[in-house]
Amino acid sequence: MKRVDLSAEQVRDLQGMVSGKVSTNESVLDQHSHDESAFPPVKPSAVVPVASTLEVSRVLAYCNVHGIPVVAYGAGTSLEGHVVPLYGGISLDLSGMNKILEVSPDDLLVRVEAGVTRMALNVKLASDGLFFSVDPGADATLGGMAATGAAGTTTVRYGSMRENVMALTAVLADGTVIATGRGTRKLSAGYDLTRLIVGSEGTLAIITELTLRLFGIPEKMAAAVVRFPTLNDGVAAATAIVRSGISIARCEFLDAQCIRNLNAYDKMSMPEEPTLFFEFHGSPKGVIEDANAVKELIEDFNGSAFEWTSEESERRKLWQARHNAHWAAVAAHPGMRTVSTDMAVPLSKLSAAVAMTQETLARHRFPFSILGHVADGNYHCQIITDPANPTERDEIREIVHAITMEIIAMGGTCTGEHGIGAGKIEALEAEIGTEGVAVMRAIKKSLDPHWILNPGKIFLA
Amino acid sequence: MKRVDLSAEQVRDLQGMVSGKVSTNESVLDQHSHDESAFPPVKPSAVVPVASTLEVSRVLAYCNVHGIPVVAYGAGTSLEGHVVPLYGGISLDLSGMNKILEVSPDDLLVRVEAGVTRMALNVKLASDGLFFSVDPGADATLGGMAATGAAGTTTVRYGSMRENVMALTAVLADGTVIATGRGTRKLSAGYDLTRLIVGSEGTLAIITELTLRLFGIPEKMAAAVVRFPTLNDGVAAATAIVRSGISIARCEFLDAQCIRNLNAYDKMSMPEEPTLFFEFHGSPKGVIEDANAVKELIEDFNGSAFEWTSEESERRKLWQARHNAHWAAVAAHPGMRTVSTDMAVPLSKLSAAVAMTQETLARHRFPFSILGHVADGNYHCQIITDPANPTERDEIREIVHAITMEIIAMGGTCTGEHGIGAGKIEALEAEIGTEGVAVMRAIKKSLDPHWILNPGKIFLA
Repeated sequence: MKRVDLSAEQVRDLQGMVSGKVSTNESVLDQHSHDESAFPPVKPSAVVPVASTLEVSRVLAYCNVHGIPVVAYGAGTSLEGHVVPLYGGISLDLSGMNKILEVSPDDLLVRVEAGVTRMALNVKLASDGLFFSVDPGADATLGGMAATGAAGTTTVRYGSMRENVMALTAVLADGTVIATGRGTRKLSAGYDLTRLIVGSEGTLAIITELTLRLFGIPEKMAAAVVRFPTLNDGVAAATAIVRSGISIARCEFLDAQCIRNLNAYDKMSMPEEPTLFFEFHGSPKGVIEDANAVKELIEDFNGSAFEWTSEESERRKLWQARHNAHWAAVAAHPGMRTVSTDMAVPLSKLSAAVAMTQETLARHRFPFSILGHVADGNYHCQIITDPANPTERDEIREIVHAITMEIIAMGGTCTGEHGIGAGKIEALEAEIGTEGVAVMRAIKKSLDPHWILNPGKIFLA
Repeated sequence: MKRVDLSAEQVRDLQGMVSGKVSTNESVLDQHSHDESAFPPVKPSAVVPVASTLEVSRVLAYCNVHGIPVVAYGAGTSLEGHVVPLYGGISLDLSGMNKILEVSPDDLLVRVEAGVTRMALNVKLASDGLFFSVDPGADATLGGMAATGAAGTTTVRYGSMRENVMALTAVLADGTVIATGRGTRKLSAGYDLTRLIVGSEGTLAIITELTLRLFGIPEKMAAAVVRFPTLNDGVAAATAIVRSGISIARCEFLDAQCIRNLNAYDKMSMPEEPTLFFEFHGSPKGVIEDANAVKELIEDFNGSAFEWTSEESERRKLWQARHNAHWAAVAAHPGMRTVSTDMAVPLSKLSAAVAMTQETLARHRFPFSILGHVADGNYHCQIITDPANPTERDEIREIVHAITMEIIAMGGTCTGEHGIGAGKIEALEAEIGTEGVAVMRAIKKSLDPHWILNPGKIFLA
C-alpha cells in the first residue's frame, strides 16, 4: 500500500459533506499523527471532523469510491498506534460527537455518541446514582474504548467493553449505516455483530453511537492496600483471592518502581514495595465480610497489615493514583516515551509469567515498571525509551516480542485490553495461527473490499 | 436451493473418512430429522458420526467440494428447528465426541469436546467443587449450546454461553481447523471470532472443542418461593429486585398454568398462582442478607410469605421442576407438541410486554403458559398445538409473529436464547434491518462460499 494524499478538490468535496471545518493545518495534522504509544507519528493528509452518523456515512461513501484511507480519532489515547494514519488519507475526528443521548435508569442503560469520554459520562450519571464501569487509565472516548475492546481496573467485577456494549450504530466502508444489538440483557438473534465490531479497531466499521450497560453506584465502597516483600508474593496472593471466589471489585498490582513514580507524581508517601490495591463494593455488611475474607487469606502470603479505608476522599485518591501510573512513569523520565506492554495469561500461569517478564527486562538497560489487573491475569510493563534514539525502540520491540512469544507459549495472549494496532501483528499470527488471521482477513475483505478502514492495523492486506 | 441426496458412492466415500458407522437406516435418519420444536421433520440423506476434529475436517472438505449440506447434531434439543436438515445432505453427529479433555481448577477452566452434555460435565466437575453455570432446561450438548448462544436460569448472575465460552476449536466449510480465543480472563487480540461463532447456529463453522469458564460451587445456596395475586405483580417485583442491585443467582417467573403442569408432572402441590422462584449464592451471611433484602422489597408487590429453604434436596427439587417446565407442558397435553417462544425486552418494558403477550394469546384458542428468566427481561410462552393439524402451526406462527413484532417495536429482541433457526428469519430482519442481515450474509459468504453449513437457518441465501 502507498500513502494517499488528498487533492485540493478532494478536500473541498469533503468540506461540502460536514458541518465542521476540514483541516490541513500542520498543527492539527500533527495532533492527529500519534497516540500515547511510542510509535513514530505519521500525519494524515487532512482531518475531517464529523458531527453525526449521517456525516460519517457521507464521508465514508466518498472515501470508499476514491480509495482514501480513513482512521477514526477520538481522544488519541490508544497505546498500540491505532490512530496513526500509516497510509495518510483522513483522520476522521469524532470528538465533537459528544452528546449523551438518553439515560434510562430503569433499564440501567445509556445511549451516547461515540465521542463522549468516560469521565464526562460518569459525571452525568452520578446524579442518577449510576455509573459506567469500564475505566482504562486515560479519559478515552467511549467509541475508542469500544473499538479497542478496552478494559480497566473494575473489569474483574463488571466486565470489559465486550460485556458492556449492548448495542451500537456503525457505518460500513461504503457508507451503509447498521444498528446492531438491542437494549436487552440477553440476545441470541443471529451473528453477534456488536462483539465483532467491538475490538475491530476501526478496521470493519466506524462506531458512531453506543448503548452501554450501567450499574447502580454501590451502597458501600471500601479500598484497601497491602504490601508484600516480593513481587511474587503479591501476585500469588491475588491469584489465591480470585480462586477463593471472594467478591472483589478491583485488585491491582503495582511494583516498587510504580509506587516510587506515583509518590513523586502525586506527592504521596507510600512505602516503595510491591503493593496490591483492593476495592470492595456492596452492602455495608457485605463489604466488611469480603474485606475480612481477603485479609485472612493475605496473611498466608507475607502481606503487610491490611490498611483499609471507606473514607471517600482517600479511596478516590488511591484510584486516581492508580490511573495516573502511566503518566507518573512518563513524568519520572522527562523527555522520554513509554512503551506500554499488555499481556494476559490463565491465572495459574500469572506468577511464572510476571517473574519471567521481570527477569527478562532486568537483563536489559531500559528502566521499567510492572503493574496490572492481576485478578484478570492481565499485566503491563512500562518501559522507558528515548524518542531521540529510534534504535532503542526497535531493541525494546524485540525484547517485548520475545516476552510475548513466551506468554503465548504459556497459553496467554499478546493483548488483554490494548489491542493489536500496528505493534502486534506478528504476535497475533503466532497466537491464533495463519488460519485464524485468514478468517479475520476474509471478514475484513467482505465488509471493506477497498481496504480503506484503518489499513495496516491488526493484520496486513 | 434444492434438496441434496447422497449417491451410494458418496456414502462410501464418507464412510472412508470416519471411524463410526455412516447410516442411512430409516430410524436413524428419523431420529436426526427433528428437534424439540414443532417444526415438521425433514430427514437427512445420511447420518455421519464423527469422533475427532480431524474427522470433521475431512468430512467438511469433502462436502464442500461436492456441495453437500452439513447440519451438526448434538442432543437434538434445540427449539427453532436448528438441527432439521432442510435441504437433506448429512446430519453430522457429534454426540460421540463426549470427552472432558482437561479440567483446570486453578484457572477455573475446562476443555471439552463439543458432544459433552452439560449435566455430564457438572457431574465430573462436582468433585473439584466447581460447576459450569449455563443451564437451559434440556441436557443439551455444550457444542449445541454454544452454537445457539444458549442461556438459562443462572444467566442473571453468571452469564450466557457468550460470556462463558473462552476459546474454541472449529472447522470451517472447507475443512480448515481454527482455534479462537485463549484461556485468559481478558482478550483483545483481533476480531472476536469466538463470539462470532458462538450463536452462529452451525452456519459459519462446526464447533468441535470448547474451553469453558467455571465457577466454584458457592459456600451457601438458598432458594425461595413467592406467590403473587397477578402475573403483573410478579413481573413488577422481579424488575424492582434487579434494579435494586441485590445479588440474585436465579429469579424465575412461572404463571399459574406452569405451576399446574408441574404439580401434575412432578407430583408437587404448589398453590397454582403466579410464582417467582429465587436462588441466592454466597457466604452464609451474605445469602441471608440478600434473601432478606428481597423479602423486604417483595412486600411492596403483594407477594405472599417468603418461603425459603437452604435444604439441599428441596432446593434441587425446585430447580429440577423449573427445568422440567417444557416437558410438563408437553405431558399435560398428550400427543400434542409445544411451540416455545423466546422474547426479551429492556427491563422497563417487561411488565407491559408480558401483559401484551398474555392478552394476545388469551384471544385465541390454544392452551398456553408463560414463564421466564424475568431478571434478564427474557420470557417464554409454551403454546400447545396438535401435530395432526398442520394448519394450527401456521396459525400459531402468525400469532407469535404478531407478538414478536410488538416486542421489537418496544426495543426488544425476537430471541434471548433460543436463536433464529428456521423460525425467526423474518423477525431477525425486522429487528436489525436488511443492512444488518446483509452484513451477516456477507460474512457467511466469505467463510462458506458454497453455502453448505446449515442452509436455511438465520437468513436465506
